Amino acid sequence: MPHIQLPEGLPGILGPMAFGPETAKPLNELADVLLRGPGTLSPGERELIATFVSSRNDCFFCQTIHGAVAAYHLDGNEQLVLDVKQDTESAGISDKLKALLAIAGKVQRGGKNVLAEDIERARQQGATDLEIHDTVLIAAAFCMYNRYVDGLATWAPQDAERYRQQGARLAQQGYAESTAGLAAAR
Amino acid sequence: MPHIQLPEGLPGILGPMAFGPETAKPLNELADVLLRGPGTLSPGERELIATFVSSRNDCFFCQTIHGAVAAYHLDGNEQLVLDVKQDTESAGISDKLKALLAIAGKVQRGGKNVLAEDIERARQQGATDLEIHDTVLIAAAFCMYNRYVDGLATWAPQDAERYRQQGARLAQQGYAESTAGLAAAR
Repeated sequence: MPHIQLPEGLPGILGPMAFGPETAKPLNELADVLLRGPGTLSPGERELIATFVSSRNDCFFCQTIHGAVAAYHLDGNEQLVLDVKQDTESAGISDKLKALLAIAGKVQRGGKNVLAEDIERARQQGATDLEIHDTVLIAAAFCMYNRYVDGLATWAPQDAERYRQQGARLAQQGYAESTAGLAAAR
Repeated sequence: MPHIQLPEGLPGILGPMAFGPETAKPLNELADVLLRGPGTLSPGERELIATFVSSRNDCFFCQTIHGAVAAYHLDGNEQLVLDVKQDTESAGISDKLKALLAIAGKVQRGGKNVLAEDIERARQQGATDLEIHDTVLIAAAFCMYNRYVDGLATWAPQDAERYRQQGARLAQQGYAESTAGLAAAR
């Protein structure tokens, strides 16, 4: 049961977002810019970073829904998403993304864990300043979203097909769009 | 030295915000709604929560600037800000705020640490659902801002007077306003 009275039937972050539409607006705008806006990392790569950090934070809802969005962008390759969560270094992804995920993993534990050698490794694999910036901010942002979802003990469905369908919708329409009608449910 | 090339001379989060104005916009909007928008916690109480979480995350820039904003709202009582960082339970604040800070401290370590008994304690001291929601989201958001600042190894001034002046400006004008001209510096 959630720690506060949330509109019923809304999974994960959607409950708190319907409860607080004023804060939902910038939260969704941030997700859209970070995960779908201009940038040189693909939407699939960015969603993998979000999924990986959510997994490290043990947030079931976020890792499952963003894993579904990632898989949608990656031609439905759900196994790759699982591989990244399990062991980034042996997963079938680029060396650049492995280096960026290593940075994301450090950020998850705390910003000061990121060392010059982590940055150097990413640069050697071709990562740009913008890609390093975006990786750090995606990882930092999911340390927020994950805590918002779990700190209020929100409800999360268990049905994989439901996440698959919602993941496809989010991949196509974006985050602000997905909650546009929620304020009315308050 | 910052991990990526940031505009020089901008303290703390202002460097990354000038580097990434597209993400700076929702980040500032979130700070304004959370810390200065509608709500029943006073701006001083909300800034104390932000300062406390930033202190727990060992983020020098964030705890110092938000501590300065908090002190401005609290009639210049800098000692109270230090007391809250040191030991919330013995600080000269309301029992409700003590209970909310206990929740914020749990969120800082991870959302799942918040237990029904933490919520019950806050309710017994008069906290509403909205106040609990806002506390969880402020704490979660500063787990993001702190990681953004430290994950990129940004520069922070050491001069207390500089924070005092900037804190007063932020308290009066807000967060979006403070960075409105930054994009030009990119």
